[in-house]
Amino acid sequence: MEMPDKGEFTTPTQELAETGYEFYRRGWASGSSGNFSFLLARKPLRLCITPAGNEKGKFDETNFLEVDDDAEILQGFGRPSDETLLHLSIYRLRPKARCILYSQSIWGTLLANRLYVDGGINFQGFEILKGLEGVTTHEHTESIPIIENSQDHIAQSHVIENVLHEARNIHGIFVRKHGLFTWGETVAQTRRHAEIFEFLFEVLARGGK
Amino acid sequence: MEMPDKGEFTTPTQELAETGYEFYRRGWASGSSGNFSFLLARKPLRLCITPAGNEKGKFDETNFLEVDDDAEILQGFGRPSDETLLHLSIYRLRPKARCILYSQSIWGTLLANRLYVDGGINFQGFEILKGLEGVTTHEHTESIPIIENSQDHIAQSHVIENVLHEARNIHGIFVRKHGLFTWGETVAQTRRHAEIFEFLFEVLARGGK
Amino acid sequence: MEMPDKGEFTTPTQELAETGYEFYRRGWASGSSGNFSFLLARKPLRLCITPAGNEKGKFDETNFLEVDDDAEILQGFGRPSDETLLHLSIYRLRPKARCILYSQSIWGTLLANRLYVDGGINFQGFEILKGLEGVTTHEHTESIPIIENSQDHIAQSHVIENVLHEARNIHGIFVRKHGLFTWGETVAQTRRHAEIFEFLFEVLARGGK
Amino acid sequence: MEMPDKGEFTTPTQELAETGYEFYRRGWASGSSGNFSFLLARKPLRLCITPAGNEKGKFDETNFLEVDDDAEILQGFGRPSDETLLHLSIYRLRPKARCILYSQSIWGTLLANRLYVDGGINFQGFEILKGLEGVTTHEHTESIPIIENSQDHIAQSHVIENVLHEARNIHGIFVRKHGLFTWGETVAQTRRHAEIFEFLFEVLARGGK
Repeated sequence: MEMPDKGEFTTPTQELAETGYEFYRRGWASGSSGNFSFLLARKPLRLCITPAGNEKGKFDETNFLEVDDDAEILQGFGRPSDETLLHLSIYRLRPKARCILYSQSIWGTLLANRLYVDGGINFQGFEILKGLEGVTTHEHTESIPIIENSQDHIAQSHVIENVLHEARNIHGIFVRKHGLFTWGETVAQTRRHAEIFEFLFEVLARGGK
Repeated sequence: MEMPDKGEFTTPTQELAETGYEFYRRGWASGSSGNFSFLLARKPLRLCITPAGNEKGKFDETNFLEVDDDAEILQGFGRPSDETLLHLSIYRLRPKARCILYSQSIWGTLLANRLYVDGGINFQGFEILKGLEGVTTHEHTESIPIIENSQDHIAQSHVIENVLHEARNIHGIFVRKHGLFTWGETVAQTRRHAEIFEFLFEVLARGGK
Repeated sequence: MEMPDKGEFTTPTQELAETGYEFYRRGWASGSSGNFSFLLARKPLRLCITPAGNEKGKFDETNFLEVDDDAEILQGFGRPSDETLLHLSIYRLRPKARCILYSQSIWGTLLANRLYVDGGINFQGFEILKGLEGVTTHEHTESIPIIENSQDHIAQSHVIENVLHEARNIHGIFVRKHGLFTWGETVAQTRRHAEIFEFLFEVLARGGK
Repeated sequence: MEMPDKGEFTTPTQELAETGYEFYRRGWASGSSGNFSFLLARKPLRLCITPAGNEKGKFDETNFLEVDDDAEILQGFGRPSDETLLHLSIYRLRPKARCILYSQSIWGTLLANRLYVDGGINFQGFEILKGLEGVTTHEHTESIPIIENSQDHIAQSHVIENVLHEARNIHGIFVRKHGLFTWGETVAQTRRHAEIFEFLFEVLARGGK
């Protein structure tokens, strides 16, 4: 088995780059889809985020853009991802979040499209849910709201803000025919959330419940 | 092809770490699920086990906890996995076992949920069954009992002890909506058992018999 | 995670070799299927292309053939791939194309065989379509014409030329029971196109829309 | 992308070890299943073969046994695989064969079990069939006979000999609930055959034709 090196110290952007490579390998960031961000400061709000069109299997910690509260670039080359406004909304409404991962998988796409009329995806009774921050028992129902996709990113960021106001305990939001946004306090925790949801997307889409 | 290095000597914890990485790669240990242990001594009983919340794609032989018969930590940092009591029960009831692997796969989850009402999963006539310790012909029926999940780990460990008392020839137990426990005399043998069961879970879940 | 080295500089043939390895890993170039080319010059037309029977998991930038407008070998060892004439047709009819990738996947094979009677595959409303050159919104319908396979490669290249004349905005052509041809201005862009189409082949073949 | 090193020279046993690792990665040699051999000499017949219980993800060119025409060990440690007699039968009846690969996949298991009553698997019209030795057009029907599994390996080797006498143009034989034997003149060619068949097993098992 090829064991990965355990570096002495890994920065959040290195962790994001590793996550991008792993998501690419799993088919969750194909064809330059997917975008990842990390919060650098809250006041004023400053974050680093993958640029638009970035290939997730081939980037490293030098490829990020640093942007401010208005999605203006402070540092780095390239155009910010179209979803930057959505990242900003999530950081504003979730004060503990320091990382956001967006993944686009086949099973998530299939399941969300099927459950869109119900407004969301519900998972119930799975032990793996205990890996979500704050969940301590498998006797739990976890919901992921599904919203419509739009190229009007300002309007869409308001939709996301409304969802985050109303659904206090969620760990992710699905944008239909687009993908999953999930967040957490560290890159590792956020990645765990993404892995748990992607696991359960496949279970449900294959007929499990 | 990237061939793995064949080290001169591999310790059981190194083998467990490699197994964790391989299980993670295959999607059997997503989102910090999965836990692995190795028996260090029988009298008094002492084992090393992965800590709770440990990411299986990123740990090495230094990440284990050493615990005693009461699941008390003798060495290492972190909280013992919730399933430590279940590992202890298996070691007590199976005197030859020196390794336990817990895997959580999509196909196992789907199949066990479907067959739960029957109380177990049965495999019959597959050549691959000959890879299980003590099985010498494909003309064999192998059973995996399915038990209910519970956060009361003491009660659950008693359920597992009862199952192990009654079913003398089994090589694994499935905890519904949770995952598969399998055991063996070495890490390699246990891993072989897990691979065989995971292979057959997919075959049966896809309609094979 | 095993992060790839980011070399100082990568040539197009190195990029093609990496792409071949990645396509092989994903099961899109099994059993020596798949062929890849890069345009070296337009006047006179000269391209490098993988030779027939080449294993995609094991080749490097020295394995290419250099051929001219008549598919005659200028440099390199081996027989040109049977599909060389098809590559030449695409380069002639698409003046901006500098790279062509042919992939053969299970999902593409299944989907194209099912939709062959309709003459093509249509994708609608997926965010991932924005990764295709010139597509700026998910509110887009992308079509891939499906043509019949033939061992008469001259006749087949005429069919492809007709398709390219009529369908101005397509990014790929599917040859039934054979595979997908896609093209672009760089290796990276073409690979992105292939990844997007392969992602959507699986989504549609599994019942998504 | 992690490109493999291209060594200056690779021996057949090194190629077999690489193949074992790749088959393991793809799930065609799980739980110590799978066995691989290479013909060292015809007169007297002498071959090297993987030993019984060998893990395919972790062996190298030093792990092979050298056996003679009676499956007696001439060199190496371990017990010959139960299927050694079947390998010998194939080498006897196919004078050009120098390599035999046995793979055990989920899709092959499912398909052969479904088509067993018909006596075999037929593939028709797929371009990928041109990768099989001697096949020059996709307008071809390739058949794989399916035989019953047995622990009486002498009887089973006679069955295989009868099949090879009658079916002159086949490239593989499937043993039900066991796996696929395929052969060729080199390791690379045999591996290509295995990849082609495994690709088509999945296509047919998923409803393609």
